[in-house]
Amino acid sequence: METKDLVIIGGGPAGCSAAVYAARSNIKTTVITEDFGGQLMLTDHIENYLGFSKETGASISEKFEEHVKTYENVDIMLKKVEKIEKENGIFKIKTGDEELLAKAVIFATGTKAKKLGAKGEEKFLNKGVGYCALCDGPLYQGEKVAIIGGGYSGTEAALYMADIAEKVYLINAGDKLTGEPITVDKIPKKENIEVINNAYTTEFFGDQLLEGVKYEDSETGEEKKIEVAGAMVEIGRVPRSDTVDFVEKTEEGKIVSDNHCRTSEKGFYAAGDVSTIEEEQAIVAASDGCKAALDAKKYLDEQN
Amino acid sequence: METKDLVIIGGGPAGCSAAVYAARSNIKTTVITEDFGGQLMLTDHIENYLGFSKETGASISEKFEEHVKTYENVDIMLKKVEKIEKENGIFKIKTGDEELLAKAVIFATGTKAKKLGAKGEEKFLNKGVGYCALCDGPLYQGEKVAIIGGGYSGTEAALYMADIAEKVYLINAGDKLTGEPITVDKIPKKENIEVINNAYTTEFFGDQLLEGVKYEDSETGEEKKIEVAGAMVEIGRVPRSDTVDFVEKTEEGKIVSDNHCRTSEKGFYAAGDVSTIEEEQAIVAASDGCKAALDAKKYLDEQN
Repeated sequence: METKDLVIIGGGPAGCSAAVYAARSNIKTTVITEDFGGQLMLTDHIENYLGFSKETGASISEKFEEHVKTYENVDIMLKKVEKIEKENGIFKIKTGDEELLAKAVIFATGTKAKKLGAKGEEKFLNKGVGYCALCDGPLYQGEKVAIIGGGYSGTEAALYMADIAEKVYLINAGDKLTGEPITVDKIPKKENIEVINNAYTTEFFGDQLLEGVKYEDSETGEEKKIEVAGAMVEIGRVPRSDTVDFVEKTEEGKIVSDNHCRTSEKGFYAAGDVSTIEEEQAIVAASDGCKAALDAKKYLDEQN
Repeated sequence: METKDLVIIGGGPAGCSAAVYAARSNIKTTVITEDFGGQLMLTDHIENYLGFSKETGASISEKFEEHVKTYENVDIMLKKVEKIEKENGIFKIKTGDEELLAKAVIFATGTKAKKLGAKGEEKFLNKGVGYCALCDGPLYQGEKVAIIGGGYSGTEAALYMADIAEKVYLINAGDKLTGEPITVDKIPKKENIEVINNAYTTEFFGDQLLEGVKYEDSETGEEKKIEVAGAMVEIGRVPRSDTVDFVEKTEEGKIVSDNHCRTSEKGFYAAGDVSTIEEEQAIVAASDGCKAALDAKKYLDEQN
């Protein structure tokens, strides 16, 4: 089996930027990803990636995909990676039905939604409970919904839902909202958002479909409930690093990487939100992809 | 005099991205810059900033400027900064005719062209000798020109000039070209580019205007000369850090900064090519600007 020079896993900003830089360094590259854009696809508007002042997550993702596809020396495989192993200095990347060998890997798989762990969460999954307001929101036109989480994604989700739902309960475990200030400031201006602070979500209830959410007031210990047709859990994300176990990770599963995205394993780079990146921002992930590809070029030159 | 929260110096990718993130963090910000885009304005095409696969340096600079101008809480001063001092924990920024006080500064002034130091270089400045093929190139329509420098900017300049000039001598001090591989590969395809390796430029000569360039063949020691109407020195760039002397710098004048763009002076951030950045790339500078602004927000919150 042919051993490839570089395999990039992930099609978000880190993976796409890595592909652009690898292509321009004349490295024959394969990108394996299920889709393009990564977490940006779950975002309504992107306004903080310099150069795009008002773009939807979907349209910026499309631009990233187009950019990668301008390079003929980049192969794209739309697949899910199941497992990565290292044997005799070569990385073995297993998808469902195929195996690839590579001298170097840039791992840029990003994150997935964090679960709450509340009662009924599994039972009502896709029956009222979800993890992506942007994806599921339009199902709840004119209904009452709960957004669980008062941070970056929770506050953005609440604003987004305010224009769709009749009423939005923003259930926040903390004593104040902690999202991006420009977003947090917009919340009080939406009359149909009710912020419930110090509220610890305990249960999703209903018959066949979700009918409501129970939470505990963490100041009084009192249990309360609200009736909603939909509840979106937006309490943050966890790294998608399960497929690799030969590199150093933090307790929460982030892959430890340095300033050039190098990990504990030579030739294996981690870029973007799956790594111990400084800030979980698209522009930083894109920068990481650049650094990883330029360092991978040097690594490959040393090998050849 | 009012003390501002944050002053950003520079309007390249680092300064602009810092302005976007500062604005979105509700920091009242002043940007002082002579122009927008920075070094990108000196570049023909930008193809490696993810999302823009085929953009001119001028048009991407315009997009950056527009992005910054979408925020009402960002003031823009089109001025040159002469000197920055620190007194009692407050930064004093002097322009020609004004003085600003700021609690925090993001310094993102980038770089300027490096001089060669050859005989006649000053005498023929703007009389045939220049430092920016893109800016001056069109003056030499159908003429013979020399590009001095065989790295990133030299090889790009040679390609750019090949479509304008009758003949391009690419004078390279090294024994092979060291630009971006995708650019280097295009050089032999241009019949009117002649690469002269191992050539150390010694003199620019002429009467009133430049008439040619002398160089020493570093293998034989022999002095040779070529006749050209224009010579563009493209041997790299040096940091523009002269206006500040209270922070730690490297020998070449780069401001030493960490992963969050923090310098040896609390509240003073250095972002982009003027700092000890990992890679001198627009996407990395934009990421740096983001990191600096997010850290400056924390610093300012602690102060207030």
